[in-house]
Amino acid sequence: MRADIQGYIIDLDGTVYRGKHLIKGADAAIAHMKSQGKKVVFLSNRGNISREMCHAKLLAMGLDIAAEDILLTSTVTGMYLSQEHSGRPVWVLGEQGLKDELRTHGIPIAGKPEDAAWLVITLHETLTYAELNDAFRAVRHGAGIIATNGDRMFPGDDGDSIDVAGMIGAITYATGVEPEVVIGKPSRRMAEAALAVLGLPAGQCMVIGDSLTSDIALGKQSGMATALVLTGSATREDAAASEWQPDVVVASLLDIIHL
Amino acid sequence: MRADIQGYIIDLDGTVYRGKHLIKGADAAIAHMKSQGKKVVFLSNRGNISREMCHAKLLAMGLDIAAEDILLTSTVTGMYLSQEHSGRPVWVLGEQGLKDELRTHGIPIAGKPEDAAWLVITLHETLTYAELNDAFRAVRHGAGIIATNGDRMFPGDDGDSIDVAGMIGAITYATGVEPEVVIGKPSRRMAEAALAVLGLPAGQCMVIGDSLTSDIALGKQSGMATALVLTGSATREDAAASEWQPDVVVASLLDIIHL
Repeated sequence: MRADIQGYIIDLDGTVYRGKHLIKGADAAIAHMKSQGKKVVFLSNRGNISREMCHAKLLAMGLDIAAEDILLTSTVTGMYLSQEHSGRPVWVLGEQGLKDELRTHGIPIAGKPEDAAWLVITLHETLTYAELNDAFRAVRHGAGIIATNGDRMFPGDDGDSIDVAGMIGAITYATGVEPEVVIGKPSRRMAEAALAVLGLPAGQCMVIGDSLTSDIALGKQSGMATALVLTGSATREDAAASEWQPDVVVASLLDIIHL
Repeated sequence: MRADIQGYIIDLDGTVYRGKHLIKGADAAIAHMKSQGKKVVFLSNRGNISREMCHAKLLAMGLDIAAEDILLTSTVTGMYLSQEHSGRPVWVLGEQGLKDELRTHGIPIAGKPEDAAWLVITLHETLTYAELNDAFRAVRHGAGIIATNGDRMFPGDDGDSIDVAGMIGAITYATGVEPEVVIGKPSRRMAEAALAVLGLPAGQCMVIGDSLTSDIALGKQSGMATALVLTGSATREDAAASEWQPDVVVASLLDIIHL
């Protein structure tokens, strides 16, 4: 491993696991990093599950990880709201996991859409028209829009599936209101949250992930080393054609320990 | 009534009925027009019901109307597809009424989203994530987008509700593909379909409706006389502030016969 790198910022979907399955060698790679005294934080654009749910999933996969070392966009949205808009009620267009995470951060959920100061949008795989309409009414009554992330698609069990961008587009087209904040990678906000957990300067950190536009872009924009893994959405050809050039391209997370 | 007007193009929602209820005097107004030898066609941006369903609803309200004199955007979408893209399979993001109407026009419905040449979007009040995802996949596999209309909201039973623009926005944001055709008012296509049914030149026709941006705009752009009714979404103040100035503003359809 590179001696100048003291901290690793590691993506989850497509880097550590795919769907319900651990990616081969990811557990060994993480264990090795820790045994060498490196610090590790997990940084994911997932906004529809709580940190607690994600932690339980990683433990069940046999990974030895502390909950505090996991930063999902649901977590960082909760941090943002409690820091910047404390006490203001929100309405959620998204799954229960986000609501749970926001409650953990003390964010009040509005009793009805019309009372919300913010509409928080995340992926919602059981979305219904009635829920879309509630979200529409929140914004019509003055709520601003915060999105956990702006991803267009994710690799679902049966193929590429529509992601948060679809939910944002529905509300934005119908109301004319654009999101005020998009929390997820490659935002500066996510980079800063990860560096705060690591307690390291950007120059001593490496971002490892499968997405050029979220992981590699975040690392490049923040002055970190970057590694693209080929276990997720991007191919070597995608990397060659991208405006975001990773420092290294590796087959999987396990190869990082051989650099 | 104005002697120079031989044909009336009349909106439905907010002009003839509101929800399940006939607007007071609408039946008398229509009967009077017909008794004076005027021609009447009904022109609606509704794309989620079939002409047959709409005809049955109007008959049940006691109106004496022929099915051929009703032009919904579902009908005009069916006409457009059969004229311009005959035999090409479509996928529908929307309600059964649109599917029924397209079948009436001989438009084949694709067996799966990936096989569709066109995605046709209309209002879908029982929308689910799975249906949104199917529509997303149709466009990801090359289907172009046709929308029955682009309305942002409609007056629902329990308040303003998100309309077709929300469904379009979801797919467009997630795929980056804009609609190729939006059929509904104020399009030239709707004006021409109405004039074809009336068999009259635009200069002898009047558009009557409750929407400045669809009804009045259509009339103005096509060289017809225009009348705004105040039984729907627009107020007298809206009219004063609009770029689309109706020739007259009347309380309801019944007042047209006193002009």
